[in-house]
This record gives sequence, structure tokens and C-alpha cells, in this order.
Amino acid sequence: MNLGMIAYIVGCVMEVEAALLLLPVMVGLYYGETTAMSFLAVAAGEALLGLVFVLRKPKNTTFFAREGLVTTALSWFLLSAVGALPFSVTGQIPHYLDALFEMVSGFTTTGASILLHVEDLDRCMLFWRSFSHWVGGMGVLVFMLAILPLASAGGQKLYLMRAESPGPTVDKLSPSIRTSAGWLYGIYFVLTSLCFTFLKFGGMGTFDAVCLTFGAAGTGGFGTLSTSFASYSLMCKWVATVFMMLFGVNFNFYYLLAVKRWRDAVKTEEVRWYFIIYLFAVITILLVLYRAGNLGRDASVVDGFFSVASIMTTTGFATVDFNLWPTYCRMILVAIMFTGACAGSTGGGIKIGRFLIYFKAVAKELRRMAHPRSVRRLRIDGKSVEDGTLQNTFVYLVVFVVIYIVSVLILALDGFDPTTTFTAVAATFNNIGPGLNLVGPAGNYSQFSFLSKVVLIFDMLAGRLEIYPLLIFFLPSTWKKHA
Amino acid sequence: MNLGMIAYIVGCVMEVEAALLLLPVMVGLYYGETTAMSFLAVAAGEALLGLVFVLRKPKNTTFFAREGLVTTALSWFLLSAVGALPFSVTGQIPHYLDALFEMVSGFTTTGASILLHVEDLDRCMLFWRSFSHWVGGMGVLVFMLAILPLASAGGQKLYLMRAESPGPTVDKLSPSIRTSAGWLYGIYFVLTSLCFTFLKFGGMGTFDAVCLTFGAAGTGGFGTLSTSFASYSLMCKWVATVFMMLFGVNFNFYYLLAVKRWRDAVKTEEVRWYFIIYLFAVITILLVLYRAGNLGRDASVVDGFFSVASIMTTTGFATVDFNLWPTYCRMILVAIMFTGACAGSTGGGIKIGRFLIYFKAVAKELRRMAHPRSVRRLRIDGKSVEDGTLQNTFVYLVVFVVIYIVSVLILALDGFDPTTTFTAVAATFNNIGPGLNLVGPAGNYSQFSFLSKVVLIFDMLAGRLEIYPLLIFFLPSTWKKHA
Repeated sequence: MNLGMIAYIVGCVMEVEAALLLLPVMVGLYYGETTAMSFLAVAAGEALLGLVFVLRKPKNTTFFAREGLVTTALSWFLLSAVGALPFSVTGQIPHYLDALFEMVSGFTTTGASILLHVEDLDRCMLFWRSFSHWVGGMGVLVFMLAILPLASAGGQKLYLMRAESPGPTVDKLSPSIRTSAGWLYGIYFVLTSLCFTFLKFGGMGTFDAVCLTFGAAGTGGFGTLSTSFASYSLMCKWVATVFMMLFGVNFNFYYLLAVKRWRDAVKTEEVRWYFIIYLFAVITILLVLYRAGNLGRDASVVDGFFSVASIMTTTGFATVDFNLWPTYCRMILVAIMFTGACAGSTGGGIKIGRFLIYFKAVAKELRRMAHPRSVRRLRIDGKSVEDGTLQNTFVYLVVFVVIYIVSVLILALDGFDPTTTFTAVAATFNNIGPGLNLVGPAGNYSQFSFLSKVVLIFDMLAGRLEIYPLLIFFLPSTWKKHA
Repeated sequence: MNLGMIAYIVGCVMEVEAALLLLPVMVGLYYGETTAMSFLAVAAGEALLGLVFVLRKPKNTTFFAREGLVTTALSWFLLSAVGALPFSVTGQIPHYLDALFEMVSGFTTTGASILLHVEDLDRCMLFWRSFSHWVGGMGVLVFMLAILPLASAGGQKLYLMRAESPGPTVDKLSPSIRTSAGWLYGIYFVLTSLCFTFLKFGGMGTFDAVCLTFGAAGTGGFGTLSTSFASYSLMCKWVATVFMMLFGVNFNFYYLLAVKRWRDAVKTEEVRWYFIIYLFAVITILLVLYRAGNLGRDASVVDGFFSVASIMTTTGFATVDFNLWPTYCRMILVAIMFTGACAGSTGGGIKIGRFLIYFKAVAKELRRMAHPRSVRRLRIDGKSVEDGTLQNTFVYLVVFVVIYIVSVLILALDGFDPTTTFTAVAATFNNIGPGLNLVGPAGNYSQFSFLSKVVLIFDMLAGRLEIYPLLIFFLPSTWKKHA
């Protein structure tokens, strides 16, 4: 394990966060909030501490997958731990664990909150909370790769990008990692600007539009009102629906459009299935709502489109309390919590891309049982999937299920009802935010015990980083010299 | 597809069931119940119809995996469809779909019932219901292989045994399939006799002891009283606990003991983990019950041992309504519904053996990520697991999850609460019987719609036969000549 190199990169991450912390300072100054000074103090402290690591440039630049995974785990934990300090020192969120929960929820783009009344926070705090969604959505290491001229020796760029980016495989948009990261943030920036513009057109105030755009872009879900999206105009709801869906698309698709490879873009199977599943869920939910007499009474058509987009992209905004909907609607929302959005998007969940691989593997196995001599390769978008990737994707499902079950059992000790317990884990592990019952759109996560909050913090990080970085970090054999 | 061979074997299965149907006739004659004649009529009809298939001995004996899978699916559906007739024609269960549900539940050793008051059934009916557990537990095709001198050409024996026996791989106890099947039924018979004897010693009446022994041996769960096991003596509860656990052990273990290969027996990893998980669940449940003040009030120590054994072996007997226990207890019971018992036992669920493979695959993958040069084979009991088996085991998990989710969504249309919906599928797909809330130990399955019952019937069969036979049966490409 190359500890020197890991410390150096973590130092860089600290400098980046210190710079980002200046943004809420400016917001606070604009609104005349004294609490903004806490951000300045934390930024200064972090910048100084980071300098200690950055100045010791390591000679040995050996960097493999495990270094990438460990660096990613450490960086993300540090980001949240430091980012939580301003809430804690100003007393806006009295308990540090709660502040940490809120910031992990922010960076991992979960949007689960321990706040009973979000309006009590100062604007600089609200801004920082929402801005963490935007940073966490595309990834802070990817951001760093795009802007910093890191030495390219040792392959650290590739391993860092792989460790932080969601999905079974990472498409390199360009042979240069720096260019790829630049493309990703370029697309991200353009879409974000468009979303903001349309929300403004919809009549939303500037501050809300900024925060909610960050929430939609990172598929996070923190809002500025306890009522989430319910009080905004109909146009704002439709705009948010469309943009949540757009941010859940594999960014590789936009890249293909940008470089005019139309045919390849249209052929992307993951994006096609993403929209098919979305429409299936919306249509069946609307039918059941209609049959049950909810439609027109406590739900309208836009609520169906909005809620499914919000849950499937793992954003977690709400226009309505879907916890009151018929069982089928709630159950299909829980189901799409797990499918999640596309790989290579800012969305969470297990990802449509993985399910594509699973389904094709099933089809192949069944064909082999019915016709033993049939031998066909497993292909996605015409490219054959390697055995190593297949194995890794299957193992992911197992690890996911195991962490899920262990988390549910620990939360169950708190004694809340099964649906609350089950969906609290579903909504955090898949980085969504709201679940059902006590953690539904009208509820929050404040009632859980210390232990449960620690478990949910782990789940949010594991969900965003796709488990392996955290597991490798906690695996004793990772730290052994020879094994 | 060799349809002639499939028809011939299905014909043999019909003759076997016709013979078995004579047992409830005798029970009915003994108790002077006129409804017993329905069994005689159905037996006669089935024997005649079966003869049509058996007399046409096929010349082409080609028989591959797909023929084995299709034969198994067909045989099991037919067994239940015919076995349900006596309930229906006598009006003891007025609707045929309910009777079919009850018999599928019997043969698949689920024990889920649509009966509100089981005491209303005649004794011959109760006997047949419980006896179907015993036949289904070890398998009717395995029984046939043990007693009938089938031609060995074409390998049909191996493929039939594989298709019907649970677990990721099938251990051939002996090079001859007939001897293997004989061993399995031999062990089964000895354990069954012992269970009956001990229950009698515990003070149980002969009729109840026979029926409940069948239920324990097949890990089924049908009883003769609405209160299941609650009203029997303390000794009977302990006897049942021990024997349920014994029938959940991989029968390969008993074979190794019988041929005095002690060392191999002790080394069996699956059996070791089976007991470790069992004890973990029992101890934590008792601790939580103690902390919550239930212990001594509405639950005693034996209830903990009994309930966990009943759920983990997928039997489904109950001494107490665990639906009233604290959340943790209910959640861990749901969790062990999925692990299930050992492969090669009469129990259901995903099987400990599969989880062993999953966990070892995870460990191997993590090791590979931390130390890319490490190459170790995946071994169970010292034997290395082939890549094909690994793939097949992973695909099983995916297919399981998909069928699970689709079933839950269809059941959700009935509008019962999420926990009822979720555990109704868990308790049938894993062949247990009782779930939580409306389908808890004090509830039953009568309230579901026609469509939901059809789905649950499919789930019970898919669970017992481990999905593939049913999937291959419904896969269009299976029936194509060239593909």
C-alpha cells in the first residue's frame, strides 16, 4: 500500500474542499449571516492541514486499484466530516453525528435529513447542503482530475476515476483521463445551467432555484422548504421531472451526442431500458391511482411523473406524500429504488446497466440449459462483456444484499415497524432520501438511535461509492504487505 | 425435445400417485369416512389414464437436461392437480383453485393454507394433506428412481434426479442413481420413524403424531389443529425442534455417517454454518425477547428454539404467534426465510450451500481487488467449484430476485399492507407457510384474489423445484426443434 501517494491525493482533496467552502461564505455575506464565518474558519483550517500532505510529494508513485479504492473511501469520509463542522460549531445542528449524517447525505446525493424543520437553517447552510449534492453527484475526485495537473505516472487517474464513478464498467470518453473528466463536468455544467434557467422561467426565486437545481443535478433531494416541491408552480414540477430524468441518463450518451455519433447514442441499451421502466412505472401507478379514486383527489398526473422520476433517479424530491397511495404504487416505488438510474449518471441504486448484465446472463444460462450446444457471448451495446466484469457484477449483487440485510437487522433493534425499517435502509443505501411510513416524504431520520445513524451513514457512503471502496478499506488483508 | 420419453415418465408418476392415493382410502375406511371413496375414484381414474402413457414405451430414449427439467415441472403440476380433486369433489374445499393451492402447498412442503378452520376436514383429507409433505420433501421422482427398474439408457435418471433435488450441485452418494435414491429414502424413512416414536413418547395421539411427523420430515408444516403446535406437550415441542433441524441437514452428511466416513462428515462446511446461523438467530431473538419483557409473559425459551427451527428449515409449525414479537425478532425470522436449510435436505429457501458459494466468491473477488496477483480457487469442503456451477448459482440469485419482485408487485394489486404482501411471497416462494401480519401464524391465505393465488401457486412450485424446471418449461425456445 502506497501510503505516501494516498496522503498526497487526500491532501489535494482537502485543498479543493477548502476552496469550495468559500462559496457558502459568499452566500452568507450576501444575506448578512454571521454564521458564514464558520465556513471561513473551517476552510482556513482545512487548507492549512491539507498543505502538510500536499507539500510532501511522494517519490514512489506506484498506484493500483486498491490505492484508488482506499483513497476514494478516505476522501469521501473526510469531505463529509469536515463539511459537517460549520453546522455543528454554529449550533444550527447541535449534535455532531446529526451534522455528519446530514453532510454524508449531501455528498452521497441521498437527501435524507435529520431536520424536523429545514426552514430554521441559515441560507449559507442551506446553500452548502445543496451544493454538496452537486459536488457529490459527479464526484470530487473526477472534479480534481479535470482541473488539477496531476502527474500521470502510476495510473492513479484511471484507478481514482474507476473507484469513484458508478456502474459496472467505466467508459473512458477519451484516451486521456483529464479530457474525459473535463467532458463529464462540461456536460454536467451545461445541463445544470439549463435546469436553473427553466426553473427561473417557472417562477421560482433565485435562491430556491439554485439550491433545487443542485439537488436535481446531483440527484440529491435536499430542498429549502419542508414541503419539498409541493408549493412550486406546475411548470417547475414538470421542469424538475424532465431534468431529474436527464441527470439519470448515462453521461456517455450525451458525449456521443456531442461528438455527433448519433447511431451509437441511439443504440445505447441502458438508456432505452431506463425510459421503458420509467414509463411502465408511471403508467401503472396512474392506472392504480385512477382505479382507487386518488387521481384528482390527492394526486394529479404530474405527481405520478414527478414521483417516479424522483425515486428512480434516486433524487428524492416530493410533490405529494406518496406514502398515502395504494399498496401497488408504494411497492413499485420501492422496487425502482433498487433499480435506480443509469450507470455513469449522477443517480444511485444498483443501476440499470447492472440489471442489463444480469438479465442477459440469465437468458444465456437458460438457453444453455435448453440447448447445451448453444454458445453465444454476452453483449451490451454490441460489445462483449468480459468474464471478470460479469463475476464482479454478480459479486456486487451479493455484497449489496448482505449489507442490506445486516443493516435492516441492526435498525430493527430500534423497534420501528418493518416497513419503516426496511425502507429506511432502501432509501439511504440507494441514495434516495425518503422511504415509507416514518421515513416517508413527510417524515425524517431524526428518531433513529446513535447506532442506526452510524449504520445509515455507512450505507449512504457504500451506496454512492458502490461498496467496494469501503469494503477494501475495512478489509484487514488490504493493509498487509504480503498476502 | 423427446416428448415420448417425457410422456412415459409422467405416466409412471401417475401410477405412483394412484398407488399412494390408496393410503388415505385406508385411513378413511378405518375412521368410517365416506369421503374416502373420492380418493379411490381418483386413484382408479389416474391409474387408467397413466396406463395410456406407460404402455407406449418410447423407442428413442435420448434424454438431456431439458427433458429432465420439463418432466419434473409437468410431473409436479400433475401430482397437485390430481391430488386436489378429492377435496374438490367432496366439497371439503369448495373451490378447485383453493384445493389446488392447498395441494401445491402440500407437495412443495410449504404448508400455507387457505383453510380458516382446519378441524373441519375429514381425517382422510388431513392425512393426505400431510402425507403430500412427506412425498414432496424427498421428491416423487427420486422415490420412483429408487423403486422402479427404469431403463438406464439416455441418462434420464441423472437428469431427473438433478432436476428434482434442491441445491447448487447434487452429490451422487453412489455411482448408481438407483442406489443413491435408495440411500436417500432409506435415511428419510429411518429419521421419520424416529420422529414418530419420540412424538408418541411425548404423549401425542397416533393420528396427530403421524400427520405432524410427515409435516416435520418434509419440512412442510400442515398440522391437524388451527393452533398448530401450541397445544402439545413441552417434550413434543422439543422433539419437533430437534427433528425439524435434523431434516434440514444435507442428507449427504447422514450418508457419510452411515458409511463411517466420520472425517468427511465433520468437515461439511454447509452443515456447520447451518447450525451457527441457527444458534445466532435463537440467541439474539431470546435476548431481544428478554429485553422487551416478552420472555415469560407471551414467549418461553422453547418458543425461540422452536420458531427459528421451524422458519429456517422452512417447515412453518408454530407454538406461538411470533407476529407479535419485537421488530428485530420478526425481521431476523424473515431473513432466515431466505437462507433456508441445507441443500440436499427436505428444506427450502435459497439454501445455505448457495450462500457459502456466494460468500466465498465475494471473498475471492475482494482479495483479487486488494492483491491482483493472488489467484486461489473457490473450494467447498476441499473440492473446487467449477466456473459453470458458479455462474449457474449466481444466475439463480438473479432469477430468484426477479420472480420475487414481480410476485410482490402483482400481490400488491390486492391492496393488503406492504408487510403482508412482502412476507406472503417470502413464505410461499421459500416453501415455509406462515409470514407476517395477515399471513402470520394466526392468519391464512384465503383472502387473496384469484390472480394472487395463481401467482403464489407458481411461486411455491418454483421454490420447491428451484425455478429452472418451470422457467425452461415456459421458455418458448425450449420447444423449438433447432435453436
